[in-house]
Amino acid sequence: MLIKDLSKKLNKILPRQNYTTELEQRYVYSFDAWANPELGKKIADAVIFVENTQQIQSVVKFANENKIPIISRGAGTNTVGSCIPSLGGIVLNFSKMNKILELNKENMTVQVEPGAIVGDIQQAAENVGLFYPPDPSNLKVSTIGGSIAQNSAGARCFKYGGTKNYVLDLTVVTSNGEIIHTGSQTVKNAVGYDLNSLFTGSEGTLGIVAQALLKLIPKPQETQVIAGYFNDIENTVSCVNNIIKERIFPSTIDFMDKNAINTVEKFYPSGLQCDKEAMLLIEIDGDKENINSIRENVCKVLKDCNAANIRYSGTKEETDRIWNARRSSMAACAKLKPNVTTDDIIVPRQNLAKLVKGVQSICQKYDLTSCLVGHVGDGSIHPQIPIDFSNETEYKNYKLAKSQMYELAINLGGTISGEHGVGLAKKSYMNKVTDSGAIEYMRQIKKIFDPNNILNPYKIF
Amino acid sequence: MLIKDLSKKLNKILPRQNYTTELEQRYVYSFDAWANPELGKKIADAVIFVENTQQIQSVVKFANENKIPIISRGAGTNTVGSCIPSLGGIVLNFSKMNKILELNKENMTVQVEPGAIVGDIQQAAENVGLFYPPDPSNLKVSTIGGSIAQNSAGARCFKYGGTKNYVLDLTVVTSNGEIIHTGSQTVKNAVGYDLNSLFTGSEGTLGIVAQALLKLIPKPQETQVIAGYFNDIENTVSCVNNIIKERIFPSTIDFMDKNAINTVEKFYPSGLQCDKEAMLLIEIDGDKENINSIRENVCKVLKDCNAANIRYSGTKEETDRIWNARRSSMAACAKLKPNVTTDDIIVPRQNLAKLVKGVQSICQKYDLTSCLVGHVGDGSIHPQIPIDFSNETEYKNYKLAKSQMYELAINLGGTISGEHGVGLAKKSYMNKVTDSGAIEYMRQIKKIFDPNNILNPYKIF
Repeated sequence: MLIKDLSKKLNKILPRQNYTTELEQRYVYSFDAWANPELGKKIADAVIFVENTQQIQSVVKFANENKIPIISRGAGTNTVGSCIPSLGGIVLNFSKMNKILELNKENMTVQVEPGAIVGDIQQAAENVGLFYPPDPSNLKVSTIGGSIAQNSAGARCFKYGGTKNYVLDLTVVTSNGEIIHTGSQTVKNAVGYDLNSLFTGSEGTLGIVAQALLKLIPKPQETQVIAGYFNDIENTVSCVNNIIKERIFPSTIDFMDKNAINTVEKFYPSGLQCDKEAMLLIEIDGDKENINSIRENVCKVLKDCNAANIRYSGTKEETDRIWNARRSSMAACAKLKPNVTTDDIIVPRQNLAKLVKGVQSICQKYDLTSCLVGHVGDGSIHPQIPIDFSNETEYKNYKLAKSQMYELAINLGGTISGEHGVGLAKKSYMNKVTDSGAIEYMRQIKKIFDPNNILNPYKIF
Repeated sequence: MLIKDLSKKLNKILPRQNYTTELEQRYVYSFDAWANPELGKKIADAVIFVENTQQIQSVVKFANENKIPIISRGAGTNTVGSCIPSLGGIVLNFSKMNKILELNKENMTVQVEPGAIVGDIQQAAENVGLFYPPDPSNLKVSTIGGSIAQNSAGARCFKYGGTKNYVLDLTVVTSNGEIIHTGSQTVKNAVGYDLNSLFTGSEGTLGIVAQALLKLIPKPQETQVIAGYFNDIENTVSCVNNIIKERIFPSTIDFMDKNAINTVEKFYPSGLQCDKEAMLLIEIDGDKENINSIRENVCKVLKDCNAANIRYSGTKEETDRIWNARRSSMAACAKLKPNVTTDDIIVPRQNLAKLVKGVQSICQKYDLTSCLVGHVGDGSIHPQIPIDFSNETEYKNYKLAKSQMYELAINLGGTISGEHGVGLAKKSYMNKVTDSGAIEYMRQIKKIFDPNNILNPYKIF
């Protein structure tokens, strides 16, 4: 359909201010946080800023009748191209549907629109003594709709699980424009198949989430962060096991390697120790009465594991500062080169040291700088690689390195994504980590929900 | 197919000792814990005791070719008729596939066969300082295969979630006899649709689980149980909210009403206070250093909520005794009348007092004894009703009462099952709590995985 015809047709179903077909807008909404110089050949035909569920229904019905792709988009922070309109079509933007509709203290639930910011939801919960744990690094800008699409996790997933563990019900507009509820208003539901979990992490390929009911939990009374520095990777990783052996259950066990520490410290000086091989960032939570004793127990384990240095935060400001440093690692990497890629590989924890050292050596081999951060409690590593895409050799090397990192993770019993998803970026690796039979069932599930293949088509598989 | 023909055919694919077509055996394996006097008209044609995955494959291929139903069965403790061979067919028993195959301390995972007993898995984990939290009341006999089929939860679900939260990968034999893996060996996995969660809770209708990889967590250092008694239901329920307001996160907040307390105490004398209207059973866990201070905080809230009496366990023996009492409530009810039914309704917690009092009054109206227990932290109630099915009036009254309990739960924003499932027992209520569109998608998912409708046919919908 020609853009001007599309514009005319949209005018019949939407107020004029709710969509745009201007080239500049269509262009800027055609990228996400997936760094890939090969993108941009195809851009969106229209960007629609929906205001309510009825508008979503109108758009979906129109798109389904006309077989136009719809790509749902929150803040566009996903790193695997899930928001890319690779066949053109409509980008559905949720910035006008960003309300926290009802926070129910007694039920410990919150009803939200898909464009609500994750950090705002967390803050609203904390304001009444409750807690929404999932903490993707970009939580200050990323939306809950995006979190649901990608099943976002974050550092606290180690103790508290990812987005999926907090989804009680989704109000979904299906590809034929109908509305279904995937769950219930209760915190448990054993009625029929688990459509909540099927939709969460489906990257916008099965339906459009118009509202979500999320579970909250009591907010831990106190939180502290301990930074343990090490002179070698093996000690760092074995320390994770030793913490668990002592039956301590931190909310996070995060990791930065030497390159990551140095890069972050230059960008965002926070007093990190730049001469050590690696750092564990251990957040503990608990009651007022025992938070200090938990911290002492963690510090004892760190000492026993030959930590070269141990620091801990005494105040909320210090805790925030150290987390801001950790979360700024991608931005810090972007200072080193014109582009920065981030990845997401995960292995059973017993193979974590091999993964970390393997990735470092692959990057060395291909003359790439790598900053490794990750949620090592879960066995997950995010290699962040500053790069100049305009340098052909560097780009070629990066592609080879990436492929070898995935192979390494797979050979170590792991997989190609723990929390970022597949999108376009990892489609070609799907069959290396998933049985062909399982992929075929997924394809058939997709067909049930989206027979005309209009919902984020050709993502995942 | 005639039983003798079936027997001959099974003889070609299985050793003789792995199946039986004897009438007595076929009869006893045709019931589960669903108390329903109308069952038994149709029984299994054969009971097969599979020993390994290859045998499951052979049986499934045979059944699929011959369109014979297969009903997977663990310990048969489910209460909604999920294990009933309502159309005859093959009951697939997993008592010979009951091994804990590998407990990996470093990865905090355990690989099990479907017939492994939940309590044994818990014990194996605890022996190495790890923890498998889901605790269905029947955990000493129920199998992990059954837990996966029904997404079993239990009291600790309040803090730790149900079975689904611990399933990392399932080795599934599909209806065509193929093997697929639904997840990965890692604790997080963002690759494709969540088949783990689709299978968990699907009541054996989508495939046969041949092995499962489960996630474990660090075992809390200490556990204590506090019993708070109350003179009225409102105070009992509002106390649950007050505990959370203090940002205390117990592992369980369970409940027994006066009838349940008295019935249990007669059956299993444990020093319960029989003159009070209700009891909260609060299990807390934490570190050695702070367990007593958590207990004091809980006791303070109980006092502030006008608890009539507060007791707490000082030793593991006392804790076990009080939990054994609570878990014996169904057995205790069975002492009162020839039969006992148990149910499972759940509401948003703000409506819990209304649910409890409503159920009590419905049972009074129909002259039924009701013992109410439940996981009130989650808003969930299990009404247990001793009954004499041979008394026609009583049975008629029970059916009316049951239907009104479900309506009450639905009118209070709740649903007809929080953790027991739908099976045969609640099929006719599915459309009262689930959109017709959502049910239709579930039906289509069932068709994808089981086009010949041989896997536990006509359960759920």
